[in-house]
Amino acid sequence: MFKAGIRAELLKDAVEVMNVLVDEAVIHVAGDGIQSKAVEPANAAMVVLEMEAKAFETFEADGGDLGVDLTRLSKALSMARKGDLAMLELEEDTHKLRLELSGITYHLSLLDPSTIRQVPKVPELELPARILMRGADIQRAIRAASDVGSYLVLGIEDDAFYVEVEGDTDKMRFTLTKDELIDLKGSNARSLFSLEYLRDISKSKALSGSDVLLEIGIDYPSRLSFDFADGTCKGMYIVAPRVESA
Amino acid sequence: MFKAGIRAELLKDAVEVMNVLVDEAVIHVAGDGIQSKAVEPANAAMVVLEMEAKAFETFEADGGDLGVDLTRLSKALSMARKGDLAMLELEEDTHKLRLELSGITYHLSLLDPSTIRQVPKVPELELPARILMRGADIQRAIRAASDVGSYLVLGIEDDAFYVEVEGDTDKMRFTLTKDELIDLKGSNARSLFSLEYLRDISKSKALSGSDVLLEIGIDYPSRLSFDFADGTCKGMYIVAPRVESA
Amino acid sequence: MFKAGIRAELLKDAVEVMNVLVDEAVIHVAGDGIQSKAVEPANAAMVVLEMEAKAFETFEADGGDLGVDLTRLSKALSMARKGDLAMLELEEDTHKLRLELSGITYHLSLLDPSTIRQVPKVPELELPARILMRGADIQRAIRAASDVGSYLVLGIEDDAFYVEVEGDTDKMRFTLTKDELIDLKGSNARSLFSLEYLRDISKSKALSGSDVLLEIGIDYPSRLSFDFADGTCKGMYIVAPRVESA
Repeated sequence: MFKAGIRAELLKDAVEVMNVLVDEAVIHVAGDGIQSKAVEPANAAMVVLEMEAKAFETFEADGGDLGVDLTRLSKALSMARKGDLAMLELEEDTHKLRLELSGITYHLSLLDPSTIRQVPKVPELELPARILMRGADIQRAIRAASDVGSYLVLGIEDDAFYVEVEGDTDKMRFTLTKDELIDLKGSNARSLFSLEYLRDISKSKALSGSDVLLEIGIDYPSRLSFDFADGTCKGMYIVAPRVESA
Repeated sequence: MFKAGIRAELLKDAVEVMNVLVDEAVIHVAGDGIQSKAVEPANAAMVVLEMEAKAFETFEADGGDLGVDLTRLSKALSMARKGDLAMLELEEDTHKLRLELSGITYHLSLLDPSTIRQVPKVPELELPARILMRGADIQRAIRAASDVGSYLVLGIEDDAFYVEVEGDTDKMRFTLTKDELIDLKGSNARSLFSLEYLRDISKSKALSGSDVLLEIGIDYPSRLSFDFADGTCKGMYIVAPRVESA
Repeated sequence: MFKAGIRAELLKDAVEVMNVLVDEAVIHVAGDGIQSKAVEPANAAMVVLEMEAKAFETFEADGGDLGVDLTRLSKALSMARKGDLAMLELEEDTHKLRLELSGITYHLSLLDPSTIRQVPKVPELELPARILMRGADIQRAIRAASDVGSYLVLGIEDDAFYVEVEGDTDKMRFTLTKDELIDLKGSNARSLFSLEYLRDISKSKALSGSDVLLEIGIDYPSRLSFDFADGTCKGMYIVAPRVESA
């Protein structure tokens, strides 16, 4: 059983947190909220989304897994009007997800969870450098990098966070000093990433509108975590590093 | 002889009423106004436009048929500035339509009316259900349907108007109760339509900005009629139904 | 040596003056400012840009030629924020152009000036007709022409400036009378041009936002000149005429 009401705009943002990286995902429904994780096809980036029951206006669930086509759910939610409440309900008999917006009812077919890409265990990472910054600043750095090359370095040097990209012809370095960040801990971290996943991730409105904790190491994965909806929802991305050619 | 002045914006909207469905049309000019009808290539949707002489600022005509390339006329009109008057004149000798906007004069070649797709007689339809609603609501219903499938049902049930679409995977139902409509007469109508024509039709600004009378039946054509420019102009679409597979 | 500071927005507009016509250009740096000229591949249109040292906030240079990829420089400048200062510096050792915006540093590879299309001497033209008009009006005339054909006539007749285009089916004439112009000198000029170059040129924000001196003749090149940034920058385009088929 799953039946819940939630601000359509919040649900749309939450679905987008996953959808920037994957098209489908298994959503685990429990009594105290929902949780989902997914990995993109090349296995280089992972997303975890958690929504407490408190993020919903009403929430009744006794557990279960829903295989959701995020792109179709997102399109349906785009029909919501400002301030609309979205009513969700699992139709057990037809195995569809019923979504009600003002005046519009969708019956969205669920996917068999076993057909959706399996997600490896979320790695426990001990990351030496922690940068707390505005999501909009990450977004700007990634946009600047996109015009120059396909790989970027995230690093810390001289008490500043930097994004560096060396393209075929040009180089770009984006810097935020400790003063321009909310907080900075650690030093001398530096890892190379494929721009592709970071660009996808930075499209998420929930991320770009929040304070984001970016954790990095030396040739190590990076982790981006953020809260939204007054802390009732959490998003997290883990991106695998590229090995720098010597 | 045909010579008329009209608000460029109104002429643009009127041309668009036809142009969303067809690229060219024969415009019948008479002493009391102009009238045009056209049918789209697959013969599944028809449009009728009527503009009284009163819709024009000045109007002099003694009858005749003009074969008009609506797309080119529409492009020319897009150069008008807010508040511009459009002056139209048939140049009898060169058989061109002269269009004057502030500072710009177009001489648009007319088409031989006999080369334009013939329009069958506009069918007299006795449609049992009449729904008077805001054009913007039709537009929203059709937009919601577009994401789900290619065919939609227009119907009345339980004193409410509904649009229903069943796609390959999902179902959507858009409902407007009697309270949300301007008026509703009739019951139990239900017909299936190709989304394509309704989507084209709903792009017309004159329609989406007006109150629209939608008339439907049971497996029968539907008719959408609306007034604009203070009732001096009338638009009408007739869309053929699709036979529902059993 | 070259080191300069300039409002990023102004530099962006100046680069665009060249970039609407060519992708790369040699920029001549001298003690009193910079200057560049370029010709588009078909040799039918030429651009000249001059920026006095006064256009810059700070300016130090002792001469030299920089081969610049305008498209990449333009993309880098698009990352500037409103009010940003752009700091430029030639890195002599690596032969790169260093561009600093708030928080972002680019190192843009310079091109070997000898690999960039050579520019013939800017022709000294004695043009009999001079029209001083708002750049936005030129832009509007060219936009109107674009929908009708591929070639346009620029001319003067009866104390009015006109743009005329005769397409495959339609004709358009755009007229600005002496009253609607800032100034008009000369009479009976008329030359035919390929719309392509004029359309590119009219995209330049510096041109469309300025008063433009358009000089034309009879079957002769046309010249468009304009100042921007309080007269500290000058742009000029020369476009070759097309021979009208008899």
